[in-house]
Amino acid sequence: MPRVRVLVTLKPTLLDAQGRTVQEALHALGYHNVHQVRIGKVIEMDIADEGQPVEAQVKEMCDRLLANPVTELYEIEVLG
Amino acid sequence: MPRVRVLVTLKPTLLDAQGRTVQEALHALGYHNVHQVRIGKVIEMDIADEGQPVEAQVKEMCDRLLANPVTELYEIEVLG
Repeated sequence: MPRVRVLVTLKPTLLDAQGRTVQEALHALGYHNVHQVRIGKVIEMDIADEGQPVEAQVKEMCDRLLANPVTELYEIEVLG
Repeated sequence: MPRVRVLVTLKPTLLDAQGRTVQEALHALGYHNVHQVRIGKVIEMDIADEGQPVEAQVKEMCDRLLANPVTELYEIEVLG
């Protein structure tokens, strides 16, 4: 059964408040060389093969449920 | 400046309530072939090279701030 990983991230033009907060916390801990921290979601799932191409099916799931097309981008990796 | 991606996921033995909820929503949409949905965080950041090995530094950040060692696992990918 193929394992699929979906990475959902905010569009780069949008302010990532959570990422900004984590970046400030890392600086406060002394990691001043860290920049451009962005935080997103990773969704992993097993998909039983039913003849339909897995990647096309996951793309449909992203568009219908897993990602917000207005504010987010997604990447699909089939881990095999 | 190397770009680094950290994937933070719940330990497999723990119940992932958010993943379970998403799985039920996918089933309700007709995707009955989806199983074992797990949801985690992806953290991406640029790290300026200061001589210290990047991966070791990020591991330290995970242990100190980015992941909860009691409930979570993390994977570090240096994207180059």
